[in-house]
Amino acid sequence: MGEEVRKNKQVVLNDYVSGFPKESDMKFIEGTIELKVPEGSDQILLKNLYLSCDPYMRILMSKPTTSTFGSYVPGSVSLAFQMQPLTGYGVAKVLESGHSDYEKGDLVWGFSKWEEYSLVSSNQILFKIKHADVPLSYYTGILGMPGMTAYAGFYEIGTPKKGDRVFVSAASGAVGQLVGQFAKLAGCYVVGSAGSKEKVDLLKNKLGFDEAFNYKEETDLDAALKRYFPEGIDIYFENVGGKTLDAVLPNMRLHGRIPVCGMVSQYNLGQPEGVTNLAQLIFKRVRMHGFNVGDHYHLYPKFLELVLPLIKEGKIVYVEDIAEGLENAPAALVGLYSGRNVGKQVVVVARE
Amino acid sequence: MGEEVRKNKQVVLNDYVSGFPKESDMKFIEGTIELKVPEGSDQILLKNLYLSCDPYMRILMSKPTTSTFGSYVPGSVSLAFQMQPLTGYGVAKVLESGHSDYEKGDLVWGFSKWEEYSLVSSNQILFKIKHADVPLSYYTGILGMPGMTAYAGFYEIGTPKKGDRVFVSAASGAVGQLVGQFAKLAGCYVVGSAGSKEKVDLLKNKLGFDEAFNYKEETDLDAALKRYFPEGIDIYFENVGGKTLDAVLPNMRLHGRIPVCGMVSQYNLGQPEGVTNLAQLIFKRVRMHGFNVGDHYHLYPKFLELVLPLIKEGKIVYVEDIAEGLENAPAALVGLYSGRNVGKQVVVVARE
Repeated sequence: MGEEVRKNKQVVLNDYVSGFPKESDMKFIEGTIELKVPEGSDQILLKNLYLSCDPYMRILMSKPTTSTFGSYVPGSVSLAFQMQPLTGYGVAKVLESGHSDYEKGDLVWGFSKWEEYSLVSSNQILFKIKHADVPLSYYTGILGMPGMTAYAGFYEIGTPKKGDRVFVSAASGAVGQLVGQFAKLAGCYVVGSAGSKEKVDLLKNKLGFDEAFNYKEETDLDAALKRYFPEGIDIYFENVGGKTLDAVLPNMRLHGRIPVCGMVSQYNLGQPEGVTNLAQLIFKRVRMHGFNVGDHYHLYPKFLELVLPLIKEGKIVYVEDIAEGLENAPAALVGLYSGRNVGKQVVVVARE
Repeated sequence: MGEEVRKNKQVVLNDYVSGFPKESDMKFIEGTIELKVPEGSDQILLKNLYLSCDPYMRILMSKPTTSTFGSYVPGSVSLAFQMQPLTGYGVAKVLESGHSDYEKGDLVWGFSKWEEYSLVSSNQILFKIKHADVPLSYYTGILGMPGMTAYAGFYEIGTPKKGDRVFVSAASGAVGQLVGQFAKLAGCYVVGSAGSKEKVDLLKNKLGFDEAFNYKEETDLDAALKRYFPEGIDIYFENVGGKTLDAVLPNMRLHGRIPVCGMVSQYNLGQPEGVTNLAQLIFKRVRMHGFNVGDHYHLYPKFLELVLPLIKEGKIVYVEDIAEGLENAPAALVGLYSGRNVGKQVVVVARE
């Protein structure tokens, strides 16, 4: 090993997780990395700046089955010298590039790893960051995957019309807070649900939702929905699944749409909750459509054109919950599933 | 009352039904009707020929709630002299017309009542029958609501492509048997499930399905689906709901579609079965879309243009289960929910 070998702190999964993930399911270790792109390789050497904590990551912690879409390789099933850190979305700086599309100093966002330095293949990088006059962390949130998710899910899958009545669950989260603001910009009435008074206040007073409620304080979700949507719901932006979805279904309006973005309330359950009101899809001719942001990245330039000016003019705001240091990443990630975070959960690995 | 007063046999509901409907939930009574359109009225006097037994009718037998779409008026809540027969799709002959669109002798299909003669408003008639060189009963089935349901659900909602793998539940029923044949015409691979050996044979040997199985003999529906769809399902035409839907979801392919036509396995349950695998909608980006044929009748002329020649050339066949006489209508209707019927259940009130 030459002089460029550096210590490289990493977060790895100990073993497959069942139930709610705990901080102790992950381990903070110190590996090493040669800060050099191997001779003849077209890989990219990244310095990770901001890492994104996203609900879908829980799914990758489970033992893989034919029904899921992959999983992390935990320490328990990898040989020690192949120990793999978690992977996830992040913002990074290019230290060295073996690919002509990138050069030293470029800022990028895409799939990276939960460590200080990463050697990645060029196709893991999704976009070069061309606008750095906004907080760089925004590229893990409003200007990154969650932003595109809100945009594609609301506009492409939800097909909103002016005056539509929109309900958003997990409404103060990375995606939900934007869906609500897009809904207002589209001339809709929008109500959000969240899990604390602080989040409800945020929704009503900072994020511009017409109404918001704390689902933990509602003993009868159906009654709560009827209170805010006496005429029913045109678009339900689904982030949580389970009981909330079941309560929403009978409150949908004719030809309603349910973009299915996530079902975070279900990811930690061995047996997901049964949804009983699906016949409402027929009665109300509802379209329920699961989507993945990966199918919509071709819209990213159009998305930036819309959102960058709105950010700069203060017409759209974004709430982040920033954890400082990779050593705090496991706690930050685990916090997503108890709703500890307020707004988009980001981990700062380095600021530049 | 003048000379035109005639006896009018009717089928009425005794009381709201919970659980599986029984023959004794209905009553066969003899009312009277004046065989005349009232002076100045634009109503139509019909002689009912064929009545259609359709699964959705069970929903109308339940006590209405805000979650359903209406109900019959059972004898128990109507005054005796207002006793209302069941309503439903049917084929009828016009005896007298107060509306210029119709005249005596016209054959029509649309919403009628479970009785011998009915006075209906002109907007209950959906279509005048212009092609009577096929069995008239077909206008309760392949050329009526179920036919249009199969057509709209498969082509409009299912958006099939050549080579798609299609699964149809309740596959020998009024709608399912056509979906399968449309799927073959569209170059798809199609498998149907049904509830008896006789129906499975019908699917494979008469209706042209590639494969079929008896769901009652499969202890593991997931394994059955994996046997017939090792590479997964592109289109699931949903007629039954519940356990079948739950088994299908993890077997869907990327960007699969689920036209939701009915959930007949659930209509008789006080508490519908919980569906637990909805997160698959996200993993596989599946579109699940409830629809109602009522939104698609503008396609009827186009539909006839496709289907009439196919019938005449023998390229599409249709299996009917004919009950003779209005007095046998309650048993015929009830039989739908135990799967007693083989093919489309029709009731003959009169042949001309």
